Amino acid sequence: MTVSTAPYAQHREQLRRILAAWGMAPPAADETAEILAWADLHGIDSHGISMIPSYDAWRRNGQIVPTAKPRIARETPVSALVDAGGGLGHVPGAFAMRKAAALAKTSGIGVAVVRDTAHFGACGYYTLLAVEEGLIGMVATTASGVRVPPTGGAAARLGTDPWSFGAPAEPGRPFLLDMATTTAAFGRVRNRVNEHLAAPPGWVLDAAGRPSTDPRDVAERGGFLTSLGGSREGASYKGYGLAMMVDILAGGLAGMSYPSDEGHARGEHVGLGHFFLALDPAIFTDATEFAAGVARFANAMRATKPVDPALPVMVPGDPERATAARRREQGIPVGTGLLAQVRAIADASGAPWVLG
Amino acid sequence: MTVSTAPYAQHREQLRRILAAWGMAPPAADETAEILAWADLHGIDSHGISMIPSYDAWRRNGQIVPTAKPRIARETPVSALVDAGGGLGHVPGAFAMRKAAALAKTSGIGVAVVRDTAHFGACGYYTLLAVEEGLIGMVATTASGVRVPPTGGAAARLGTDPWSFGAPAEPGRPFLLDMATTTAAFGRVRNRVNEHLAAPPGWVLDAAGRPSTDPRDVAERGGFLTSLGGSREGASYKGYGLAMMVDILAGGLAGMSYPSDEGHARGEHVGLGHFFLALDPAIFTDATEFAAGVARFANAMRATKPVDPALPVMVPGDPERATAARRREQGIPVGTGLLAQVRAIADASGAPWVLG
Repeated sequence: MTVSTAPYAQHREQLRRILAAWGMAPPAADETAEILAWADLHGIDSHGISMIPSYDAWRRNGQIVPTAKPRIARETPVSALVDAGGGLGHVPGAFAMRKAAALAKTSGIGVAVVRDTAHFGACGYYTLLAVEEGLIGMVATTASGVRVPPTGGAAARLGTDPWSFGAPAEPGRPFLLDMATTTAAFGRVRNRVNEHLAAPPGWVLDAAGRPSTDPRDVAERGGFLTSLGGSREGASYKGYGLAMMVDILAGGLAGMSYPSDEGHARGEHVGLGHFFLALDPAIFTDATEFAAGVARFANAMRATKPVDPALPVMVPGDPERATAARRREQGIPVGTGLLAQVRAIADASGAPWVLG
Repeated sequence: MTVSTAPYAQHREQLRRILAAWGMAPPAADETAEILAWADLHGIDSHGISMIPSYDAWRRNGQIVPTAKPRIARETPVSALVDAGGGLGHVPGAFAMRKAAALAKTSGIGVAVVRDTAHFGACGYYTLLAVEEGLIGMVATTASGVRVPPTGGAAARLGTDPWSFGAPAEPGRPFLLDMATTTAAFGRVRNRVNEHLAAPPGWVLDAAGRPSTDPRDVAERGGFLTSLGGSREGASYKGYGLAMMVDILAGGLAGMSYPSDEGHARGEHVGLGHFFLALDPAIFTDATEFAAGVARFANAMRATKPVDPALPVMVPGDPERATAARRREQGIPVGTGLLAQVRAIADASGAPWVLG
């Protein structure tokens, strides 16, 4: 794959200009660009600029409302129900997690749920908003794509249904887990097709729900992604159960559709739901000692003798931070095929092109 | 394996008599027996009567205090820190989840953490206490055994670190996920040794942290269990991350040790921690509609075309309920080897033997 590389600031600015050209108010375009660029900076390439073509398709068929503003529809001292009004999920997501964190600061715990929302980028961004306030964070969202059968099933009923958890540790090195509840993301399977490579056992099911190592089974022939665990023997019913719980928290509490519902994500608006929880460790223990304990735990993992001396043990959050440090120096790479698509969208939207 | 089968009531009564003989107050012995027998009834055989030899060993070396009573050490309108005083975890666990559920009924959300506790049986029992009140439940606990390396590591730093989630659906058929964050439980690996069978790929690592299919590597030769995912390619870093989060919630918030700490679970008391969360869906949506939505979602899973017509798709909680229905009729089977061990413990403790 040939790539074109641009400095972070320029990459972010290009995103901002496209979103502004779609009619987003300046602060909303700015924050959405920030969140998308955060994903690209941290190597979560599936959740940054690569989403622009999908967002544009939703926008053009009216399923997302670029001018929408989040509002609180219902509130208690520990909770907020946020209505995103059919907009993209980034601004309402950040709004909701900031609200949950503020509630946690006053009440000890805060939970916010967003309804009538769309894709919000990477879960981890929002988890980090809580963690940077010294709080434990938890974020989940429903997904628009339905590509995953329940364990033992031969039809798609679930999305990649991601879940993220975080906790403060040493400054700048929090614990930050952000995971799809599938074994592999669809993008990784598609890359195998492009590179004419087999998929590892446990990633892919064919259209009859049988194990396969041919990535074309899922990319081209109606097959499926597996739940984390990969097979019944590998305990994929655990990944399947986690995915259901994600949909219950993020979709069910928001009153939005389940991925198994007819017409899921194909209504007037995309119609996703998000879930955000923030918890102040100070209601149980000394917050400084708590963060020091998480740091000690994380450092014990990092110090574990590695199987391969060239691959030191890492803690959730470490790989993404290493990528971000590198990309801040070297710029953010974007495949030239994707870049051409984004440029065509920018041109059609009347957004200036600043990526060179 | 030869088994001896007894009616549920008799099985539960035997457990109660042993616990009472250890000095537990009658209500505590009764509730602990109830929770252990619930696990056996539901087929969670690793967490019921099979724990008696471990509990007895802890008791004899003074690491558990049979006469301990839980007390609330710290409280807010949304939280309670419960001190178990070094007792077994069942009574403080049920106390803590009932407290969290009561807080959720008044405040919308309740979180309880138990410190200075020991093994509490199966997580799912406590999750169900919340679910039966119409609440979403979440339960996690630290574990005493340390058998799991972080992904890419060649030394044990984590436990099986279980996590449970539940939500109300149709009466008697809630969503109830209760999972170790490892691929397979140690008991299932030990069974493979006993039956002279290989372990499926992804269950076992040898003492150098390399993939193995020989269950003796973990049972006899210093090897390890894998995190859910089974291998780096299978995304075991997700199961590893979930295990860390379990320890952060259940151990870190309780101020107890992490499994990577020197002397973990080998102090004056066993020194585990538990985490319980209850959330009232009514703070976001209509509670009846919420439960109906979870039921619709679950039934869509059950109605999914199965890969193998002989294996219909199930929802987390279904397999355990099917086992419980069968065992209520047919009795609870216990391996004769285990039963002889339990009988010797009963005799040494001065507990009457009622299992025939």
